[in-house]
Amino acid sequence: MAWQDISTKAKEKLDASIPAEWRIKEDNLPPVDRKDVTGVPAECGILSDLELAITDSYATEIVQKVAAGEWKAEDVTRAFCRRAVIAHQLTNCLTVTMFDAALARAKELDDHLSRTGKTVGPLHGLPVSLKDNFNIPGYPSSVGFCSWALEPMEQESTIVAILRELGAVAYVKTNVPTAMMIAETVNNCYGRTTNPLNRNLTSGGSSGGESALIAMRGSPLGVGTDIGGSLRIPAACTGIYTIRPSYGRFPHFDARSGLAGQESIGSVHGPMARSMADLRLFTDNVANASPWLRDPKCIPMPWRSVEIKNRPKIAVLWDNGLCSPTPPVKRALQTVVDKLKSKNYDIITWPATGHAGANDLVGRFFVADGGRSVQKILEPTGEPWRPEMKSYSEAKELSTYDLWQLQKQRTALQKMYLDRWAACEGLDAILGPTTPYAAPRAGGFKTVSYTAIFNLLDYSSTSFPSGVVGDREVDVYTADFKALGEVDEVTKADYDAAEIEGIPVSLQLTCRRLEDEKVMALTAKVCEDIK
Amino acid sequence: MAWQDISTKAKEKLDASIPAEWRIKEDNLPPVDRKDVTGVPAECGILSDLELAITDSYATEIVQKVAAGEWKAEDVTRAFCRRAVIAHQLTNCLTVTMFDAALARAKELDDHLSRTGKTVGPLHGLPVSLKDNFNIPGYPSSVGFCSWALEPMEQESTIVAILRELGAVAYVKTNVPTAMMIAETVNNCYGRTTNPLNRNLTSGGSSGGESALIAMRGSPLGVGTDIGGSLRIPAACTGIYTIRPSYGRFPHFDARSGLAGQESIGSVHGPMARSMADLRLFTDNVANASPWLRDPKCIPMPWRSVEIKNRPKIAVLWDNGLCSPTPPVKRALQTVVDKLKSKNYDIITWPATGHAGANDLVGRFFVADGGRSVQKILEPTGEPWRPEMKSYSEAKELSTYDLWQLQKQRTALQKMYLDRWAACEGLDAILGPTTPYAAPRAGGFKTVSYTAIFNLLDYSSTSFPSGVVGDREVDVYTADFKALGEVDEVTKADYDAAEIEGIPVSLQLTCRRLEDEKVMALTAKVCEDIK
Repeated sequence: MAWQDISTKAKEKLDASIPAEWRIKEDNLPPVDRKDVTGVPAECGILSDLELAITDSYATEIVQKVAAGEWKAEDVTRAFCRRAVIAHQLTNCLTVTMFDAALARAKELDDHLSRTGKTVGPLHGLPVSLKDNFNIPGYPSSVGFCSWALEPMEQESTIVAILRELGAVAYVKTNVPTAMMIAETVNNCYGRTTNPLNRNLTSGGSSGGESALIAMRGSPLGVGTDIGGSLRIPAACTGIYTIRPSYGRFPHFDARSGLAGQESIGSVHGPMARSMADLRLFTDNVANASPWLRDPKCIPMPWRSVEIKNRPKIAVLWDNGLCSPTPPVKRALQTVVDKLKSKNYDIITWPATGHAGANDLVGRFFVADGGRSVQKILEPTGEPWRPEMKSYSEAKELSTYDLWQLQKQRTALQKMYLDRWAACEGLDAILGPTTPYAAPRAGGFKTVSYTAIFNLLDYSSTSFPSGVVGDREVDVYTADFKALGEVDEVTKADYDAAEIEGIPVSLQLTCRRLEDEKVMALTAKVCEDIK
Repeated sequence: MAWQDISTKAKEKLDASIPAEWRIKEDNLPPVDRKDVTGVPAECGILSDLELAITDSYATEIVQKVAAGEWKAEDVTRAFCRRAVIAHQLTNCLTVTMFDAALARAKELDDHLSRTGKTVGPLHGLPVSLKDNFNIPGYPSSVGFCSWALEPMEQESTIVAILRELGAVAYVKTNVPTAMMIAETVNNCYGRTTNPLNRNLTSGGSSGGESALIAMRGSPLGVGTDIGGSLRIPAACTGIYTIRPSYGRFPHFDARSGLAGQESIGSVHGPMARSMADLRLFTDNVANASPWLRDPKCIPMPWRSVEIKNRPKIAVLWDNGLCSPTPPVKRALQTVVDKLKSKNYDIITWPATGHAGANDLVGRFFVADGGRSVQKILEPTGEPWRPEMKSYSEAKELSTYDLWQLQKQRTALQKMYLDRWAACEGLDAILGPTTPYAAPRAGGFKTVSYTAIFNLLDYSSTSFPSGVVGDREVDVYTADFKALGEVDEVTKADYDAAEIEGIPVSLQLTCRRLEDEKVMALTAKVCEDIK
């Protein structure tokens, strides 16, 4: 089948899976030029008061109330199914719905609880949304490709099985860019996902279906992936929380990839949610579910307890030498640093040594196969390359020898960075922008250099909202701005203060490799201290 | 310089570094046809009674006596320098000596102890031998290449620095095969290392300079590397102990490699010694020295305590479907299994599912660069390919895309194996041959398939002497022998019962990835129980 026909069919199938009574009536649909649609769920008359209360709750609250018998898992699941549908109509965030199966599963969980008095696990009855590339038997994992959009999978990704066993209810899968290798969420099959805070903006990528859905409160907890920023970028664009864990903490096995077999930079899974506590619900329970007994890449390391110093030492990356943070991000970073200083944090400056080299290496690893992996998935349906993937379509394939040389360079850079860290006695974390943007306009995402270096290093990074929101009056480039280079020029030229009005600005906190517990605890402390 | 000239010069340099009074007098040299030379150190009149007592001691005893002031580090070091020289004259096991530096360092340690009453660390005053590829400033790391044999290194490998800080004294580096990619120890620069138990046999490879030296008691503790069996094979050929740890436990950074940048199968470092307790001296102290703060590939995982069940469940790999164990190895395995059964171990059979595929994959990964890495090191001096490296010299280079496909296959195999293990409830370890041989004749090592699969899986494996030694009368192929294939045919044809008379036979015990503590504890228990 030609790619256009598959796209049409896949969208029809998705549309047909949505019950009529969960759709926003034509008259209640906000005009297409309404930017902020986060208020629509409360306005559109579809959700009951209970459903609004449920969906406005945090994941941690939901599991408590379900476990206590206060809320039924079935009601919780239905509420999120309905709100997810509302979110989808406004932002195009879904690819697959599994409403009947989810409701049946929720009912089973309710029965189990009332029969035994016990939950099946710590996530009992919690709806969890999944990025499109996680496999669930009977549903496709398109990864943004037309070729794969109608092909039901047979296997279940390890993380999906573990979440299910912990009591979670899978109910939707969410949109991604082609091959999950674009920093926005757009593909030739399902189209573009928009940012619910301002639909002119991108929700980021590649986990941008998730970020749009969670920002709409259509999901209390989602699972995404990150190979160059794909958890942190969409989280930052929509003002939610995430952690890009180090490789091997959470099970990676049997999730679908556009670059299968690529290992020079490990793709990881992580949670996305509206609070740090909600992320912990995922991190602690998944790590403690012994994923290493099922996923050969997982490290046998349960979630460890950590103590955070009274006076953390934080190094600030003001810019990475490649692209200045845009005005709201610069202001957010300064604001947070000032607050942390006022709380007696030990603040130092972190020069961007090695960041340019890291950015270059990341780009070369991603296209080391000359784009052949992606090409082979596009080919059967005649699907064209997305213009955002020019570096892939034009890439020259490396030989194994040349790849080995790049891997040597990467290891040398990792060593240099580790030594820099060690030389900075007592350093706890690096604080910097997650991206140069509050959130750019659709098509405006120009550099993943702030996030991707930590993929290359395999460091553990969170993204969290700084408390600062964009202000069109204040957040303007100053006359003395000097561009760091071409990307920086373009970023300034693209910048439109009007569009970032009210958009939450996020920052990135990074600890070293496998310091996942530490970066989580320290981010929670920072969030508390900047309130 | 041409490779032959470099070889001559490197050997002259090595020879010149040996003090005349430490050489065995011409008259005392055993005839070249004397097979077992392990008795020579006690016969040759070079070592004093104290020096014999010191060098016959275990590493654990030595550090105790030095710490207690009973022995001087300087005397201990001199004793091992002298015995190492004796070993070298009989087996050609050394590439670099550092006697003056070692003795000076030992004296410093003695001074420190007498001045402060404290040791610098748990390895205070322990001579440690190092495989040739570990870098020490001022000395070459030839890795068996003429090109590198006269080039002094500037950097210090992380493991060398850590051992030094723990109090160890580096005094010799030991011979390896070209690129460390042959299962025997032979190269165009330093020639061949022989097995001190029978000089017609190989000491194994690639850490075969170490194994010969340790079996001669010319070192109490050595450090080798393993990418396909390079610790376990030489340990097995000489009847000593080793652990091939999982990747990331011991620091790997800045050791020289013949296949730099190759990551599909991780090369690891590990200790070699004459007892399990001596290995623990290394494993515990190195893991607890926080190597992850210096080596970006190390996992932040101190040495953990484990409990071994009263009734361990052990699966026996009787053969791997590719090459039958030769008669002494078959008998050793049966003997050990019988003893363990008599001690109430839960013994099951482990089919060789996946072993052929693993062996094939390993071979393809090693030559994925078409042998270019090795070729580029041979070229400058015109050094020819070793005939043992035919698979490298004839290899066709893979593209990155093709390498990614192999990596996918490897991950699938890892998953299959992990699931097999999980399906075998309560399984603690796999017991099998380390190699098909007690020790083959020089040039007779034909397959690394028993060891390399656990490199591919990144499982933690020990090799330990079974207590069984070769017996020319008993250890003969039976009339009903059916070869499993070509390698098995050749192995039988090559087999000479006369040569393995008295040679200790080793076995391999394997736990899962990063179960290093468990495989150590379980091996210690097995060794106790088969006494």
